[in-house]
This record gives sequence, C-alpha cells and structure tokens, in this order.
Amino acid sequence: MAVRDLEHPLSSPSPLPARIAIVGSGFGGLAAVKALKHCAAEITLIDRTNHNLFQPLLYQVATAALSPSDIATATRALLRRQRNVTVIMGDVTGIDTAGRSILIDGHRPIAFDYLILATGAAYSFFGHDEWASHALVLKTLDDALLIRETLLTAFERAEVAEDPAEVARLLTFLVVGGGPTGVELAGTISELARATLAQDFRRIDPAAARIILFEAGDRLLTSFPLASSDYALQALASLGVTVRLGAPVDRIDETGLHAGGEHVAAAAILWCAGTKARPAAHWLGAAAAGNGSVIVGAQCDVPGHRDIFAIGDVASMTGSDGKPLPGLAPVAKQQGHHVGRLIAARIAGKADPAPFAYRNLGAMAIIGRSRAIADFGWSRLKGWPAWFAWSMVHLMLLVDFRSRLTVYVNWAWAWFTFGRGARLLTRRMHDGGD
Amino acid sequence: MAVRDLEHPLSSPSPLPARIAIVGSGFGGLAAVKALKHCAAEITLIDRTNHNLFQPLLYQVATAALSPSDIATATRALLRRQRNVTVIMGDVTGIDTAGRSILIDGHRPIAFDYLILATGAAYSFFGHDEWASHALVLKTLDDALLIRETLLTAFERAEVAEDPAEVARLLTFLVVGGGPTGVELAGTISELARATLAQDFRRIDPAAARIILFEAGDRLLTSFPLASSDYALQALASLGVTVRLGAPVDRIDETGLHAGGEHVAAAAILWCAGTKARPAAHWLGAAAAGNGSVIVGAQCDVPGHRDIFAIGDVASMTGSDGKPLPGLAPVAKQQGHHVGRLIAARIAGKADPAPFAYRNLGAMAIIGRSRAIADFGWSRLKGWPAWFAWSMVHLMLLVDFRSRLTVYVNWAWAWFTFGRGARLLTRRMHDGGD
Repeated sequence: MAVRDLEHPLSSPSPLPARIAIVGSGFGGLAAVKALKHCAAEITLIDRTNHNLFQPLLYQVATAALSPSDIATATRALLRRQRNVTVIMGDVTGIDTAGRSILIDGHRPIAFDYLILATGAAYSFFGHDEWASHALVLKTLDDALLIRETLLTAFERAEVAEDPAEVARLLTFLVVGGGPTGVELAGTISELARATLAQDFRRIDPAAARIILFEAGDRLLTSFPLASSDYALQALASLGVTVRLGAPVDRIDETGLHAGGEHVAAAAILWCAGTKARPAAHWLGAAAAGNGSVIVGAQCDVPGHRDIFAIGDVASMTGSDGKPLPGLAPVAKQQGHHVGRLIAARIAGKADPAPFAYRNLGAMAIIGRSRAIADFGWSRLKGWPAWFAWSMVHLMLLVDFRSRLTVYVNWAWAWFTFGRGARLLTRRMHDGGD
Repeated sequence: MAVRDLEHPLSSPSPLPARIAIVGSGFGGLAAVKALKHCAAEITLIDRTNHNLFQPLLYQVATAALSPSDIATATRALLRRQRNVTVIMGDVTGIDTAGRSILIDGHRPIAFDYLILATGAAYSFFGHDEWASHALVLKTLDDALLIRETLLTAFERAEVAEDPAEVARLLTFLVVGGGPTGVELAGTISELARATLAQDFRRIDPAAARIILFEAGDRLLTSFPLASSDYALQALASLGVTVRLGAPVDRIDETGLHAGGEHVAAAAILWCAGTKARPAAHWLGAAAAGNGSVIVGAQCDVPGHRDIFAIGDVASMTGSDGKPLPGLAPVAKQQGHHVGRLIAARIAGKADPAPFAYRNLGAMAIIGRSRAIADFGWSRLKGWPAWFAWSMVHLMLLVDFRSRLTVYVNWAWAWFTFGRGARLLTRRMHDGGD
C-alpha cells in the first residue's frame, strides 16, 4: 500500500551509475542539486530541517515584519519535479570516507560516489560557550522566532512592571557585533520600538527603549569601504541606536553584558559577532581554517578526496584578490553550481571544467527603512537608492513566486503604515513567566 | 524616562467615574471594547495571549495553508487609537467579587466597577483527561503549529522508515468528532496528502494516507439540516476520508485509538469532539451549565452580580427558539456589542437597552476545496456556491486589511497550484526524533 519500494534507494546498492549525496539544503546545496538536474544519477539531499531558508531576510522574521513562511519553502516542494532527487530530513553525525557513506542519526548509512558538503555556519562565542545561555543568535527560523518572542515579551512585561529599574532593563536591547546582521538587527529593533510600537502602550513609552550595539573593532561593516561604515554609523545614530566602537565584550552572564568597564542589564543580548563552520572538516579529518571550515582546492574539492567537495560557509577558499571568499549567498550558489557541473561532467566522462572563479556581484547591507549601503565595485550607493536596490534584489532572489508576492504585500504595508504583521507570541516563555 | 506614569491606571484608585475590566480578547471581548469606544471610562483588556485570533481559519494554519500572522493580529495594534483601553497580557487566576477586583498571576489585582468575562472555551475529554497526552486539539496558534509539526513530521519519518507497519502507522491520521472543526480538518488533511504532497516523496505514496473520522452520533454536522449532513458525508468520501458514524471512542492511549472494537495506530489523533467553558463560573461561584459555562440573564448578566457579565462561549443563554445559543463567533460578537452598549448607557445614566436578542446570520462549514455547506435560514447552499460564500464571508471578517490581502494571495496560490506555503518544521520534535 503506502510503501512504493522499500528497497530503493536507501537500502541497497544502486542500479544507477552514480550516487551523489549532498548535505545541506541552503543556497549552496540547492544550487548543486539544480545543476545536476539532467544528470543520470541518484541524488540524495539531506538536511536537518525540511526547508530552504532565505537567510538574508531572517532578521525581518526576528523583528516581526515577516512570517517564517515568507522566507522559507519546503525543500521537497522546490524539488518536486526533479525526479532524480530524494530529500531526507535527518541529522548527519559523520562521514565514513573509507566506506563512502554518510552516517545519519537513527537511519541507515547512505552510500555515495560523490559527496557535496554544504552544511553552512553556526555562531561562535570565541571559546566562551557559557555565554550562549544568556545570548540569542540568528541562524535558523527557530532562532528568529525566539528573538521575536523575547523582544515582544519584554515590552509586554515592561507595561505591567512596577519597579522603574526593571522597566528600564526590559526596554534595553543589546547587539554584539557590527557586521551586516548586527547593524540590521539594531536598526530594525529601534524602528520596532520607535515607530511600530510607539502608540501601542499606555504606561511605558516604547520609544524610550535603549538599543546599544557593541563592536570590538574601530568601525562597523569592515568588509565595506570606510565611507559606507561612516554612513552606517550616522544612519544608526539617526535611528536612535547607540554604537560603542572599540568595545570588545568581556563577559555575558545572567546579570547582563560587561564590555570596557561598562555593565548593562538587558531584556535581550543578540550575539552577531562571529561564526564557525559546522563540523564537516572534523567529519573528514581534513585541514581546517581558523573558523573550522574545510580548506578546499581549486575545484572546491577536499584535498585527498577527489570526489568529496565542500562549498559555501563550510568551505575556505582564497579569491583572485588573495583574500578569503566572504560568507555570502552568491559564493555558496556559484560554488554549488560549479561542483554540480563538475560532477555531471565526470559522470558523462568529460573533462573537469576550469577551476572555480568567484564572480563578485557586490555586497549590500540594510540599516533601516530607506537606509542602506551597496557596493557593486563599479558603483557605490547609500541611502534611498541603496535601499531601493536592496529591496529589488532581495525580492528577486526569493526562491518562489508566492513568497515574493506576500513579502511584497507585507513590505508595502509596513512601509506605508510602520505596522508589522507578525507581532505574535505563540508560545509561553520557557521560564514560565507571563 | 521610560515610565510615563507608574501610578496610572493599575496601581491606584481611578480618578475616572468607571473602571471596566474585560477578560479575553476574542471576538466577544473585542466587540465589547469597540462598543465602549466613546465611553468616558478606563478600560482594561486582559488576555493570556498578545493577539486576537481568527479561530474559524485556525484549521488552515494546522494544515500548513496559512501562517499564524495571516489570522492573528496583535491586540495592541488593533486598539492603538482607542486611548481609553489598556491592554495587559496575563493569566487571570480568579475574581474577588466582594472586593471587585481581578486576580492575575504575578501582578497586582485590577479593580473594576464593571466586568465582562469573555474567556471562551477549551477542549473537553469528557472526564478522560488521560487521553489528552495522546491527542491533539485545535484552539490556539500553538495548538495549530503543533498539529502542523506532527502532520509534516509524520510524512518525513514515513519516507525513511524501514518497517511497513510503521510506515502505515505514520500515514494514518484520526479525527474524533464530526462537527465543523472535525470535518474541516479531516477534509483538509486528505487534500494535503492527496494533492499538495502527492509528488513530493520518492519512497512513500502520500496519497495512500488513511484519514478516518470517528463520530459518536449517527450523522455529521448535527447543527445543520439532514441534507447538509448527507452532503458532507459524500464530500468527505470523495476526498478519500473514511467516516465511521455511531463510533464513540472507548479509549485513547499510547498505542492509538479504540472505538467500537476497532483499534487503530496513528501518527496523530485530533480531538474535535467536545468543549468546555473556561473556569469563569467557578471564579464567580455562579451557576454553570453542563459544559461549565455561566448561565446568564437576559442582559448577559451573571445572576446576583448586576455589573458582571459573561459573553460568548463562556456564557450559556437560551435563544428565542428555546435552544441554547450556539458557540459561534457571531453570538460572541453580538453579545459583546450588547454588553458594551449597556455599560455605556449605565455610565451615562441612561436606561438599560432591551434584553439581548441573537440575530441569526446563518452557519457555514467547509469540507475542502470547492466543497462546503451554508445554511442562512432563508437559503441553503452546498458545493461551489457555498464554498464561494464561505470564502467571501471569511475574507471580509478578517480583522485587518493586511491579513485580508495576504490570505487572498495564499488562497489564490493554493487554489491554482494545490501548493501550501507554510509547510515548515521550525522546531525539533519534543521527543527528540529527527
């Protein structure tokens, strides 16, 4: 009845010439799958979640502007028509490189002839893992919903709190790290407090909320030109965000954040300061860069394993300018496409394509409504034009048309009204509070 | 700084003539608040959640067609411009009728001159509370997300399960109760399996899923005419749902459901069989109907308490036809509006309005795509016309324009493609599975 073929493709040697396993259904993994669309192979795509997530807009879920379904799509639905792919939701626990199989928690190993690791990055607390229980990060939908829950609950609690010091704490939000995610979050939380929520409370004034961004270095957005960093600093100030430059964090504990002799108690501490690759290098016993990513060859191949590849944030590769390629979606997508084409060529008995070369499409960061920066190499934008370019590019990049339409509706609504449609507390807080 | 006025309005006797407390921000509570818009009173609206929920569409969140933000709106945002209302998120634990104050977990009591209880209903397992841990209910957003998680995870697990019996169990979904919610859920789950997911798996055939609806009585939708019940039965059958009439549930335990000598193991058991009022009657020491609701007078007043009212699902009132008023949104809305007007009249020193009279607007139930029934009294519809009427009425009833627009986009998308945009697993399952 329900079982079409229990022997296929997980539990027996494949009758097809090549078995390709891909771990991770992010930008890189999905690009590789799509590049293998017409390949006579049996592809297995494994991910811990059931969806492809458009991470660049995750901060908008965290700040109640968008819903999870606006920026995430079921991977199975995306790959419905590509019949050579089997999608599996599962936790990879290791790679048996000698036996050429992937170990998955609670399942049989999955055999492969070719393997692509596209497992991405996680947050790193620089050896201070004890800080993790007092700070929030932003990598998954679950992370974003927890941030949303924490932010909205803080205002609710402040409205009924009796102690002025407690009210002040509940209206204080700290962001650590002045990269794109930190800047986006700080600017958007300030807009949430000063515009969206401004008229919604009777005892507290949400516009009095303090948003402080701590950055260890001497400027924001270090991957951008200096002028862009200055613009971001001004834009954040105009949004009411306090920025502390040259302020490395000394400690985060249950009382709050300690940095440069300052101690701040807060309703939320958002950690956006550093990432590390997921443990693919460890699985392979391969050489790793400082952040744990696999140092790959010119074809994104893992040295010593001709048929194993690493792409995206889990790979470390030097660009034509001698600097490491950045942890951006376009890098992952281009690498995924490259490795997919390479494997298809090998299966077809053709020569490998030329080594991977990153085509730099530029970078953008958004600070708030009508405030953004863009660096396309040949052109640099800031303010309105950059914000418009950012909006258009991100709408176009959203993986399916439905998301594009609902995001457009939500954005148009938010732009004209400052309203946010996803201000929902759907779970009781874990500490049993109100 | 952040605190505008800590002495107002929670922590001291009010300087204004009347303090009105309303518990529950559903259809009834919100209608009462709006009817008091121009009243010179200090209104406090208390709810356990931060949102107004459009419950009639909750089953669409549970079946991955809509997102929570499509059918729920932050109560504060809805009441932003009504400056005589303070919204408080909190758990009411009791009413001090002698002291005329509401007891709230972790907060000071809130004093009132007038009180409206609009706390709604919860599910009842008819004295078998031990069944609750093996069954899912559908009342809150959290409930809906848990059902969505359970349904989608069952298909994911079935795809990788090795044991045919386990695959069969994972593709079996049971619904208990043949009222509108049970019929809606059974029909929609079948559509999810047979249309939306049909092409998305490689080893299992989602269309082979079994959906069985158990109803203790001899027909579905007993509040509708007999012909409508027959239509619903045929419509469910055409969608692939098995309906067992005259099949009261004997037991639900960790092995599955027992009914009429039959034992069925399932991935999910959805309990839609009975409700009970939230404990307002108990708080008041008032006379309660069989389902726990407060038996109210002709003005929705609680006998013995001239200034305390109960409305909606937490109230029990007999209609002009001698039958109890049904647990429908229009009843709650009309009662809320009535009590709001009555209190405004008393505060203005005017006479009470005429006793509450329910204006029956009819009832509708949806079975699936293009399949519905409607009974307006003067006209009965089924099939396409009823489905169209249902869609229009529910779109118009959605509380704000933004929801209306995004629901429309999602519905149009789903109608043409059978796709569902909210097929997301955002949390790891609580039992530690994959």
